[in-house]
Amino acid sequence: MSDSKQVYLFREGDAGMKKLLGGKGANLAEMTRINLPVPPGFIVTTEACNNYYSHGETLSEALKGEIARALGELENESGKVLGDKGNPLLLSVRSGAYFSMPGMMDTILNLGLNDTTVETLAAESADRAFALDCYRRLLQMYGDVVLKIEHDFFEKVFEEIRSGLKIPLGQRLSVDGLEALVKRYKGIILEKSGQEFPQDPLQQLYSSIAAVFASWNNQRAITYRNLNGIPHDLGTAVNIQVMVFGNLGDGCGTGVAFTRNPSTGEDKLYGEFLFNAQGEDVVAGIRTPQPFTELAAVFPAIYNEFDGICQTLEKHYQDMQDIEFTFEKEKLYILQTRNGKRTAAAAVKVAVDMVAEGLISKEEALQRVEPVQLEQLLHWGIDPSAALAPIASGLPASPGAAVGKVVFDADVAEERGQAGENVVLVRIETTPDDIHGIVAAQGVLTSRGGMTSHAAVVARGMGKPCVCGCDALKIDLGKRYFQIGDIMVKEGDMISIDGAKGLVYLGEVPLIPPQFSGDFAKLLSWADEVRTLGVRANADNPVDAQKAREFGAAGIGLCRTEHMFMEQDRLPVVQEMILSESETERKAALAKLLPIQQGDFEGILGAMAGHPVTIRLLDPPLHEFLPNFEELLVEVTLLKERGNDPGLLEKKDELLKKLRSLSEFNPMMGLRGCRLGLLYPEIYRMQVRAICQAAAGLIKKGVEALAEIMIPLVGHYNELAKMREIALEEMEAVSKETGVKLDLPVGTMIELPRACVTADQIAPLADFFSFGTNDLTQTTFGYSRDDAEGKFLKDYVDDKILPQNPFAVLDRDGVGKLVAMAVKLGREAKPQLKLGICGEHGGDPNSIEFCHQVGLTYVSCSPFRVPIARLAAAQAVLAGKNVEKKSTA
Amino acid sequence: MSDSKQVYLFREGDAGMKKLLGGKGANLAEMTRINLPVPPGFIVTTEACNNYYSHGETLSEALKGEIARALGELENESGKVLGDKGNPLLLSVRSGAYFSMPGMMDTILNLGLNDTTVETLAAESADRAFALDCYRRLLQMYGDVVLKIEHDFFEKVFEEIRSGLKIPLGQRLSVDGLEALVKRYKGIILEKSGQEFPQDPLQQLYSSIAAVFASWNNQRAITYRNLNGIPHDLGTAVNIQVMVFGNLGDGCGTGVAFTRNPSTGEDKLYGEFLFNAQGEDVVAGIRTPQPFTELAAVFPAIYNEFDGICQTLEKHYQDMQDIEFTFEKEKLYILQTRNGKRTAAAAVKVAVDMVAEGLISKEEALQRVEPVQLEQLLHWGIDPSAALAPIASGLPASPGAAVGKVVFDADVAEERGQAGENVVLVRIETTPDDIHGIVAAQGVLTSRGGMTSHAAVVARGMGKPCVCGCDALKIDLGKRYFQIGDIMVKEGDMISIDGAKGLVYLGEVPLIPPQFSGDFAKLLSWADEVRTLGVRANADNPVDAQKAREFGAAGIGLCRTEHMFMEQDRLPVVQEMILSESETERKAALAKLLPIQQGDFEGILGAMAGHPVTIRLLDPPLHEFLPNFEELLVEVTLLKERGNDPGLLEKKDELLKKLRSLSEFNPMMGLRGCRLGLLYPEIYRMQVRAICQAAAGLIKKGVEALAEIMIPLVGHYNELAKMREIALEEMEAVSKETGVKLDLPVGTMIELPRACVTADQIAPLADFFSFGTNDLTQTTFGYSRDDAEGKFLKDYVDDKILPQNPFAVLDRDGVGKLVAMAVKLGREAKPQLKLGICGEHGGDPNSIEFCHQVGLTYVSCSPFRVPIARLAAAQAVLAGKNVEKKSTA
Repeated sequence: MSDSKQVYLFREGDAGMKKLLGGKGANLAEMTRINLPVPPGFIVTTEACNNYYSHGETLSEALKGEIARALGELENESGKVLGDKGNPLLLSVRSGAYFSMPGMMDTILNLGLNDTTVETLAAESADRAFALDCYRRLLQMYGDVVLKIEHDFFEKVFEEIRSGLKIPLGQRLSVDGLEALVKRYKGIILEKSGQEFPQDPLQQLYSSIAAVFASWNNQRAITYRNLNGIPHDLGTAVNIQVMVFGNLGDGCGTGVAFTRNPSTGEDKLYGEFLFNAQGEDVVAGIRTPQPFTELAAVFPAIYNEFDGICQTLEKHYQDMQDIEFTFEKEKLYILQTRNGKRTAAAAVKVAVDMVAEGLISKEEALQRVEPVQLEQLLHWGIDPSAALAPIASGLPASPGAAVGKVVFDADVAEERGQAGENVVLVRIETTPDDIHGIVAAQGVLTSRGGMTSHAAVVARGMGKPCVCGCDALKIDLGKRYFQIGDIMVKEGDMISIDGAKGLVYLGEVPLIPPQFSGDFAKLLSWADEVRTLGVRANADNPVDAQKAREFGAAGIGLCRTEHMFMEQDRLPVVQEMILSESETERKAALAKLLPIQQGDFEGILGAMAGHPVTIRLLDPPLHEFLPNFEELLVEVTLLKERGNDPGLLEKKDELLKKLRSLSEFNPMMGLRGCRLGLLYPEIYRMQVRAICQAAAGLIKKGVEALAEIMIPLVGHYNELAKMREIALEEMEAVSKETGVKLDLPVGTMIELPRACVTADQIAPLADFFSFGTNDLTQTTFGYSRDDAEGKFLKDYVDDKILPQNPFAVLDRDGVGKLVAMAVKLGREAKPQLKLGICGEHGGDPNSIEFCHQVGLTYVSCSPFRVPIARLAAAQAVLAGKNVEKKSTA
Repeated sequence: MSDSKQVYLFREGDAGMKKLLGGKGANLAEMTRINLPVPPGFIVTTEACNNYYSHGETLSEALKGEIARALGELENESGKVLGDKGNPLLLSVRSGAYFSMPGMMDTILNLGLNDTTVETLAAESADRAFALDCYRRLLQMYGDVVLKIEHDFFEKVFEEIRSGLKIPLGQRLSVDGLEALVKRYKGIILEKSGQEFPQDPLQQLYSSIAAVFASWNNQRAITYRNLNGIPHDLGTAVNIQVMVFGNLGDGCGTGVAFTRNPSTGEDKLYGEFLFNAQGEDVVAGIRTPQPFTELAAVFPAIYNEFDGICQTLEKHYQDMQDIEFTFEKEKLYILQTRNGKRTAAAAVKVAVDMVAEGLISKEEALQRVEPVQLEQLLHWGIDPSAALAPIASGLPASPGAAVGKVVFDADVAEERGQAGENVVLVRIETTPDDIHGIVAAQGVLTSRGGMTSHAAVVARGMGKPCVCGCDALKIDLGKRYFQIGDIMVKEGDMISIDGAKGLVYLGEVPLIPPQFSGDFAKLLSWADEVRTLGVRANADNPVDAQKAREFGAAGIGLCRTEHMFMEQDRLPVVQEMILSESETERKAALAKLLPIQQGDFEGILGAMAGHPVTIRLLDPPLHEFLPNFEELLVEVTLLKERGNDPGLLEKKDELLKKLRSLSEFNPMMGLRGCRLGLLYPEIYRMQVRAICQAAAGLIKKGVEALAEIMIPLVGHYNELAKMREIALEEMEAVSKETGVKLDLPVGTMIELPRACVTADQIAPLADFFSFGTNDLTQTTFGYSRDDAEGKFLKDYVDDKILPQNPFAVLDRDGVGKLVAMAVKLGREAKPQLKLGICGEHGGDPNSIEFCHQVGLTYVSCSPFRVPIARLAAAQAVLAGKNVEKKSTA
């Protein structure tokens, strides 16, 4: 390891050496290579960092030798010598890892100053205050970074002297003040570290390099890497560069620029600068930076040179650049360049523009936009420029932002909503009885329930923002208020919620509207040319289906029939059906539901004319359609106690008993899905008949109705065999009755581990498989999502037991292995088997890549995720082609 | 197909041709081959049956030709001719499939009689009534079997004539009566079938053979095959044999015999016979058969010949035989032989005796006993000879039979039990508060809950009989009675329960005690010599551990710590621990539990000294230890309504809130197993410490304490990594504190699909795997056992969706595939990995065979299943060696 070269001069490297030289170093080398004005310097490699850790956190003598040799080159180039009294070289020492970790690690400037060279600098610059200021900054940074002396000790002394001298904040101290400060700082260093500040600049340099290495493993850097999934064994490089000064009086300054507007993507230099300042002053916010028009006015030559360099860099890197620069005595230096971070809107525009400009190919453009970013463009969102503090957080159950007055029940929501007021419905949890309130509200906030709770599912279905399971919320329904800590919010008070982040704000926050654009459509059309994976949407009603079509869905991959059952006007009939004591009663209730369901299907099949619609037969346990057991128990208890209405008591008690008989210990694994269809075939018969009658009716009218019938929760091929038989019988019957020959595909969800490992037995009976990865994740992990997300999953992810929430990103090692097995077994048994996914993973880019890799036919996701899926599917193809992905991050 | 030989003379076949000739035919051929007195005959093969079905249910001309040729041989051999007026041949036509299907298919006797030959028979036998009786039987059987005329028409006419002539039941009609009957029967045939009874005997024969083939697919045969897992495509053979008559007056008779006593296994001819009768008369029960002593007294020559033949047959078949015989005019004929069905006790004795007699090898003896039969011998059971009608059925939750007075609560059970009364505790469901009542009762009966309900688990643990989830039971706790339909049972009334079958009886039924014997021990010792699979027991306390040792368990494969928590005196401390508001409080409660748990482990490790004890850390969700939510809700509602005790209300309301916060939608998939250990590591630390301190203490006293620590519900290797770390830390600490160097294995349950498919990642962190196939079955199928067994599993098995309850017999296609995958991946990653199974499948012979095949190290089952497992494990080895298994069934 230590045999290989550990130190590179800028002129020895290039942009391809990021792994070894870090991002910043590689770009400095690259800019040097193409003759841009970069102050000379060298890089100590990431390998040297790893050697540092494997050698007991010391710099080896070999490394020191290499550093000394590089330093010699720097001295030759600059004509200055480190520590030389006559012509001292001053250096900056900066970290620079493979992945950018802004602010996580440490920097030391003005290295090389000591009691002697500070005087030389004073003389040279003819500005003693400047030189002393540089020195005190070095003392402070060295104390902090190398000697680990708390920042506060320096700050306190600075304040003491500044206020003693009555110098305003943000203004440089006087020479007297600075001399006093230098003395006091040296005192702090001696007192706290037990040693004098080293006057030997080489010792300063070695110690600083070691300190930067050490900062790789400081707590905030570790946390940052954990949060961003960056490996801990990469190490950081260290950049040692000749100092240039933007704060050396007139003709000096420093600034940052983006080659295009990072908010909008507009192709115009965007940035700001300060005269007579160092980089940290721009960030510190004490002085207000100025726009570039000012620079162009005062120093047109510098501005023009900089503008030219910006164009060169953008062309060179073929991406929008984020550049730091300094000018010292009217000489321009570039200190850093990197790909600029940008908003979703900017990312789309920049990518599409650069294709038009011939800078990049369409394939590259597709890789320049993070798919999940697109979601920002599809919903109302909170203005990212607003500085806001949330008062609570919950689960990000349905994206988008909403502002409205707090209401605590659905009736009030409906009343106020119809009166034109914006309201947010706040409930402990919602039930089917609340649907009309959700319809009327801008958004929903609940204190209980997970990502699949009623509120979450319904809100996502309607495209309404929703925050769920916000534990901190203590709701007093009687007194009509909720409390979060000390904050009390009454009915009618204004709140805002961010359903994409799961945050709650007090009052009205500024919102920004959805931002589609022609570029957006163009980018997605390129994605469509590239991708091989189909993209469908999950939608349960014509409105959502319409939305899905607008976003480019090629069909409906999951149409859930139970949400149709939940609607307010149908629920009583559904309850009648469930509570039937006999098959005859049940059939009577089902007969009432038949025309309603048929109407549902006519609507959605009509909206998707010419495109397939996969309709899943009834899936959830029946008690989900019934009143709340707990509330009913309380009611019955009180009726018994009061004894004032024996008739009502009897009726309610009867219902309570029925509810108890339907209640289950683990409803997720109980009587649901095709198990219902097997026990009560009349329910599935009604649904299949409704689908067939709807399709036949439309076909007669010349509408291309492409319904597909999907049987949920199959675990054994016999289940599918029976259900398929029933479906074909009804299809045959409707064909005869209507004279329209129906041949609708009948397929199954694959959402149980058993279905995966026996897919070869199931495939011959199925026209298609649709992977229900929500339930498959639940059963593979043995997690009840509703419980896990509230009780332990967050801790699991925080503690790195799991790399991420497996309900958000498909778990490739476990769930993915089962999916891959099912694909293989299924296709072996039936090569032409159509394979889709309709779990929420169908809208997650990482999971979509997996779906592409295992060879699925299509993914299906919520309408708002369709654009994301289209882009992600294209990226999956490109990743497979090993086209290097240039991250915009 | 039809080219090959479809008809075999008896002398052309042998016992090895069962598949082709059916069981009965092959044995008739075999007996003919060894020159026993079998009436001559031939067999139409099972292949001919299949050809019949594939040729539009007709007999091909080729087949008819073969039959005619075989018939010719029969005529030569017997010197009689079918339909010949002078010397007519009479035949019996009987079905005979590969597997015995008693009474499921049809038989026709006396074939060959017609209006002419009946007169010849009358003259030949000098008994006109006999000949007419034979004829009317043929008419009736032919009408029934061939022409599908309802039995009732014949019965009604028979009754009419019998009662008209005033002839007593069971006595032969007079010649007049019989002549009238023959005429009336012919009339019925003509009227109902539209055709005359065929006078052509060859037509009779072909029609009868076709009818027997057709009977293969009658409804009762199909049902029987479904119930017994017999394939539907085997087909039946047909046996055509020269008639002999046991009812031809003096010197005639018929009987059945077992070569040994089928109840006890005693080596003594056992059977009964009737003078002057046909086979069906013995079965019909109108006349009482006589013992063989009578036969020996009247016809010593016949008896001696028969006794000799019995010995020959037993030696020849090397198994106890069930033989049918007839003697006609003092000439003995053997009509059938087969291996005799026997009780468990007889099976054991016969097998062991036959080894001693040199008839069979030990290996064969091991294959002669069905492992599950052994369970009969280990528990008190209901006397199988008693004719009893159950009043209700539930789930067979814990085997054994119990008789006692009904009591409805645990306190009464304890009180009466201590007073020396036998009681059966009847509850809707039991809770930890009922334990003392279960201890005091003979058995437990509940109206709710499945095979893993509290009552079931506790009763199995204690070895008490238990019937669970008996829906029909309507309990009125207030009025102290229960109702089953119209039957009302009051507290104090006597009932009996059969926990092995899940049945409930009114009153006291006769019981038989456990029946171990020296033979039992000998057979199991042979099994131990053969088997390679280890057998351990699941036991949670020293008493069960002791029982397990007695039954030959080599260790404890699953010691559940939660049952220790459930005991009445510990529960308050456990609740204190769970309800703690802080880690400090929780640690204080855990400190109280530590010495208790340590005591538990000292007990069980001491009882199993020298044998490994796998201790599973806490597994169930915490709310299982807390009071019932519903009851508390009612209590709080009433306290609120009454407003008379605000202090108590506040306390109870607090508890209610805590319960609500702990409640889960699907607790089986919620916060349990190692998820608890990760969130509350102090609980697992306490348990590991208790195990380590117990082991160290015993080791110091010279006891070989072999504890193994098992982490439940691992789905991701990181979970095991963390838990292992905690366990090793505590082990290290206790080692230091006690000076006893502990090196206890730390392993994991494999009970989630994800654990199976990622077993290669988990294995490096585990000293052993123990397959928890109960939970693995739940998650693989997505079945909540508690819900599935009550709601749909029975229907699934009845409707043949599933071949059997997968919680009883391991599902090889699904769950088994995951287990096999985990074994393969686990052993690839760690070749020496110890692999066990501790789900209930560990006690099921079919599942044990699977465990042997996939290469597990051991199975673990309830103590009473240990003998079963030992035998089943030996049989698995023998089955693997392709030693032909001679079924006793």
